[in-house]
Amino acid sequence: MTVGELGERGLIERIRQRLGPPPKDVLVGVGDDAAAVTWTRGTLLLTTDMLLEEVHFRRSTATLREIGAKSLAVNLSDIAAMGGEPRFAVVALAVPPAMRVVDVDELYAGLEDMARGHAVALLGGDTCAAPHQMVLTVTVAGHTDGAPLCRRGARPGDAILVTGVLGAAAAGLAALERGTVPVAADVVKPLQHAHRMPTPRVREGRLIHASGAATAMIDLSDGLATDLAHIARESGVGAEVRLAALPVSDGTRQLAAVLGIDPWSWAVSGGEDYELLLTAMPQHAATLATRVTTETGTPVSVIGEVRPADEGVRFLDEGRRQVPVRPGFDHFA
Amino acid sequence: MTVGELGERGLIERIRQRLGPPPKDVLVGVGDDAAAVTWTRGTLLLTTDMLLEEVHFRRSTATLREIGAKSLAVNLSDIAAMGGEPRFAVVALAVPPAMRVVDVDELYAGLEDMARGHAVALLGGDTCAAPHQMVLTVTVAGHTDGAPLCRRGARPGDAILVTGVLGAAAAGLAALERGTVPVAADVVKPLQHAHRMPTPRVREGRLIHASGAATAMIDLSDGLATDLAHIARESGVGAEVRLAALPVSDGTRQLAAVLGIDPWSWAVSGGEDYELLLTAMPQHAATLATRVTTETGTPVSVIGEVRPADEGVRFLDEGRRQVPVRPGFDHFA
Repeated sequence: MTVGELGERGLIERIRQRLGPPPKDVLVGVGDDAAAVTWTRGTLLLTTDMLLEEVHFRRSTATLREIGAKSLAVNLSDIAAMGGEPRFAVVALAVPPAMRVVDVDELYAGLEDMARGHAVALLGGDTCAAPHQMVLTVTVAGHTDGAPLCRRGARPGDAILVTGVLGAAAAGLAALERGTVPVAADVVKPLQHAHRMPTPRVREGRLIHASGAATAMIDLSDGLATDLAHIARESGVGAEVRLAALPVSDGTRQLAAVLGIDPWSWAVSGGEDYELLLTAMPQHAATLATRVTTETGTPVSVIGEVRPADEGVRFLDEGRRQVPVRPGFDHFA
Repeated sequence: MTVGELGERGLIERIRQRLGPPPKDVLVGVGDDAAAVTWTRGTLLLTTDMLLEEVHFRRSTATLREIGAKSLAVNLSDIAAMGGEPRFAVVALAVPPAMRVVDVDELYAGLEDMARGHAVALLGGDTCAAPHQMVLTVTVAGHTDGAPLCRRGARPGDAILVTGVLGAAAAGLAALERGTVPVAADVVKPLQHAHRMPTPRVREGRLIHASGAATAMIDLSDGLATDLAHIARESGVGAEVRLAALPVSDGTRQLAAVLGIDPWSWAVSGGEDYELLLTAMPQHAATLATRVTTETGTPVSVIGEVRPADEGVRFLDEGRRQVPVRPGFDHFA
């Protein structure tokens, strides 16, 4: 059965059935003019991301379940980057009428997987017909106690830290685009997974926020070079990053060697790692890193130092020579 | 200059400059991972709507300023339908790189016009490249004191009321699609305006909610027949509507006569009037209608009565004979 055969009302009813009764603080879930939730806590965070088929995802390189999960994950990552707790999501979905209903089910299964993993309630949204390709806009509401962590706030002398590893998503995408690569499956599969199913660092972000030691934070969606430049510009500072300190997995290095690509270019200019990049008071940085790793299992690395604005944002090799970096991702370039 | 030449960062900076400093309860506006606002009041309402070029709007029949205003208006209408006060909006925007920057400015000018008129703060969102056509997803956060008005809640015996006039948007669309119609400009222009620039009934919705007399409410986006069926289904009731009681403007009747169309079909099955359809305790209905009209200037009409579920939803002519109605708008049909 296609979405066109089921009809708009039928599709909404099917989604409502899937999602089941909402949690107790939800007054109105799927199927009314707006969703309504009881909101008692201090600061409301709102973030929205639009994903277009053939621009942000391809059905040839990811399943619909993965696409659904990722569409929510990228928003959860934005909430994580503020140190917030995600609570509710609404989904606006445009699908071609010829799309099979079971495919929409798969997309929702992915959304639900990701929502469940972070105790986020899916509250409905909007459904309409797309002429050609799918479009998906997910909006997440979350909260922080007190002020959130922003891109502004870094000070010269602060340490620069990053969660997880860098460049894995770009390596995975390179492998997916090539179809087959002469590398063992157990090396390449985790990289492809990193691209298709990023893990939003929500627990890590909340611990970092609660520590009081961080001064600025952003999630790595466009690549380290671009996203660090965002922190630098908003904070009015410069930065220096030691390439040798960047956490790059053995798998990423292995694939890079086979493909003749510099793994640092993936780590610095590749996007979609969805790790957290933060600055922290230097005297607390090591303790913060250890604590996050102990409580979540996620590695946290000190990769550089915030500098005065006039020094710019620089990436240094082991001889402390400045390395030129490709400008990061621009949606319109 | 095109959006592609300006680049993503340049476009976001331009939008941030346009919007200026946010109001005091906004901690973080445009240009960070998420927007953050201080939230002290009880119930949070969230609504999202996606508008696709060539599906929901055409640049041949509306200016970008009108499209911007309408994209926010349809969301404000959803908040109004819950009896809520809209507060904040985030905008996810996909535009072709070849689009002119001044055209994006116009779109934002329309968003700002509508936001200002309802004291809504635009908090940023997401910007990306669209391969072919524009896509716009607007999400609005609002609030009510206590529980919102839902589609569920109508009881047999309740009066059915509607704000404003019906069918004007459908009449206006018919005129726009035909290009020229043999009707005076001062008759056809208000109809075209009703289609291109609907007025969300926010003040009316809040007064209706505050009165405590209403039992269910919805906004008329898909047409009276479809939207009344939503209330009936969610409330587990039937309904009867007297065609003769429907508020249809002289201009709509005049255009219908010239085009040989039944004006009631526009009033019953035409969409996008964005008026409020509500049910209210019968003993309070007339007082409620008078009060809303006195305070806002918007006419409110009693058009029928809620009936037991087994009677279904029926439209009656002056001889109380049931009139067949076209099923309302289905995005996938």
